[in-house]
Amino acid sequence: MTGFPKQIKIVEVGPREGFQFEGIGDPYRIKLDRKVEFINRLSHCGFQQLQIVSFVHPRAVPQMADAEEICQNIRPAAGVTLTGIYLNDTGLKRALAAPALTLIPELVLSASESFALRNQKRSFAEDEAMQRQMAALYQSLGMKVDTANIMAAFGCNYEGEIPLSRVIEKIELLQDIAAGAGGALRHVLLADTMGWANPEQIKYTVAVFNERFPEIELGLHLHDTRGLGIANVYAALSSGVARFDAAVGGLGGCPFAGIQGAAGNVATEEVVFLCHQLGIETGINLPALVECAKLAEEIVGHPLPGKIRN
Amino acid sequence: MTGFPKQIKIVEVGPREGFQFEGIGDPYRIKLDRKVEFINRLSHCGFQQLQIVSFVHPRAVPQMADAEEICQNIRPAAGVTLTGIYLNDTGLKRALAAPALTLIPELVLSASESFALRNQKRSFAEDEAMQRQMAALYQSLGMKVDTANIMAAFGCNYEGEIPLSRVIEKIELLQDIAAGAGGALRHVLLADTMGWANPEQIKYTVAVFNERFPEIELGLHLHDTRGLGIANVYAALSSGVARFDAAVGGLGGCPFAGIQGAAGNVATEEVVFLCHQLGIETGINLPALVECAKLAEEIVGHPLPGKIRN
Repeated sequence: MTGFPKQIKIVEVGPREGFQFEGIGDPYRIKLDRKVEFINRLSHCGFQQLQIVSFVHPRAVPQMADAEEICQNIRPAAGVTLTGIYLNDTGLKRALAAPALTLIPELVLSASESFALRNQKRSFAEDEAMQRQMAALYQSLGMKVDTANIMAAFGCNYEGEIPLSRVIEKIELLQDIAAGAGGALRHVLLADTMGWANPEQIKYTVAVFNERFPEIELGLHLHDTRGLGIANVYAALSSGVARFDAAVGGLGGCPFAGIQGAAGNVATEEVVFLCHQLGIETGINLPALVECAKLAEEIVGHPLPGKIRN
Repeated sequence: MTGFPKQIKIVEVGPREGFQFEGIGDPYRIKLDRKVEFINRLSHCGFQQLQIVSFVHPRAVPQMADAEEICQNIRPAAGVTLTGIYLNDTGLKRALAAPALTLIPELVLSASESFALRNQKRSFAEDEAMQRQMAALYQSLGMKVDTANIMAAFGCNYEGEIPLSRVIEKIELLQDIAAGAGGALRHVLLADTMGWANPEQIKYTVAVFNERFPEIELGLHLHDTRGLGIANVYAALSSGVARFDAAVGGLGGCPFAGIQGAAGNVATEEVVFLCHQLGIETGINLPALVECAKLAEEIVGHPLPGKIRN
């Protein structure tokens, strides 16, 4: 119908997801200098954007307590946009103060209230109030909200299937909040936080999304929890989706996803390999990226699920 | 075009591929009683067919030296067809003599001569001669050849891309050989022995195959060497393919595939999970199969690539 895109943008989220997920129980296992080395190396692979840290409370995610130090110490390749994530106004202010980071005026909601209560520690109503507060903060900084992320958009380990109608409601809610603060959504990222999506669900969701929000670019953040990650990427590509998050090596996961967790993200090298096989440009140097996957395995101290190693 | 099948047949090849690939360098690492236990357990998962051994020379694959003993000692569930593979007349005679096995009148060619020289130890010409000899042997046993397998049908670690025209030539050659021995091909299995296929190549190959051989059922034997295995299964399902090989846990590989080997097969539990998500019947009890994947990990002594473990 829409056909494959000519080129796609992949945001590498391995540093943030990996550093956040690895070392649970031993938050200082991955040293600052290794985190810095990893980000520096990744910045030479051709990515336009790297998501490198999360500004969350060190009690919740002690592995990310050194987020500011990471930002201070990295020496990335020129021209790469570096970003972080945050879930409240305190985190946003920390991101704003961090050197080297680009602030994206974005809002985040979960489509599962059970997940929101664990991850954001907020009910739907409290989460909505926080997004209004964040939107006002962006406005006070002279920024117009243009991006929204919906977590648990395809299913939830606590709630099971998530109806697409609820995902659409959340997007419309964030459209309203953005508009109320002088912004307008141009980008929406749907996250399969706990790896529930299947390829036909992806195709259906993309079709409904494009029909409903023709002016908004859709991106996907997919996990490979049950082995369908790359099949889901393929289904999305065949529906014209041109914006993906991925994590080198298949790093990552969410500490608050429950049951078997959410490990891991789709492996960036597999996404890149698939795209190149299909003639879709990524701008990524695959051999350099595979070296980063090996470096990641060395840093975390165990094999990662990504399969391309030579 | 053709749409998803309502139900598919999966042949579990984990015992054969796994026992053949694991223990290289230490062929007696996996004990007979564990092999027997594994096959017995797998036979209760709902498979119509298990491929359990290969009858190859013990010098080439010492891990399979106990193929006859395996066949003598297993106590599988009733109604499950048990099969083995072989690459020459000696192997066929061993399979014929093995208790509990069903002999499938099949022929095998590689679409890569470089691979044939390593795996079958034969040139194209020698391999053709062997297939004629095998066909005559089946005929002398009162069996009509009805099945053909093409190895390295999607690419080769030694030769790179394999043209589809050569795959078609090999199928036509086996049609001629079968016909010369009173048989006719009803089933063709294309094997991506070294994990080269991508989803669009699968779709194109299936379309060409169905156009060319409308009377033959196509099956696929796919490897997940570069992470595209399940995406390839999805592409094949969406093209109507209803017959797959798979190996529980993602066991297996080919010792003669070179470079990084061919490990492993698509994990049966991921194929089954994908199918059930898409509403396609497999007849397989997924929780029982996941327990077999865990047993396989215990037997081989290391984690396997399949991602579904609960």
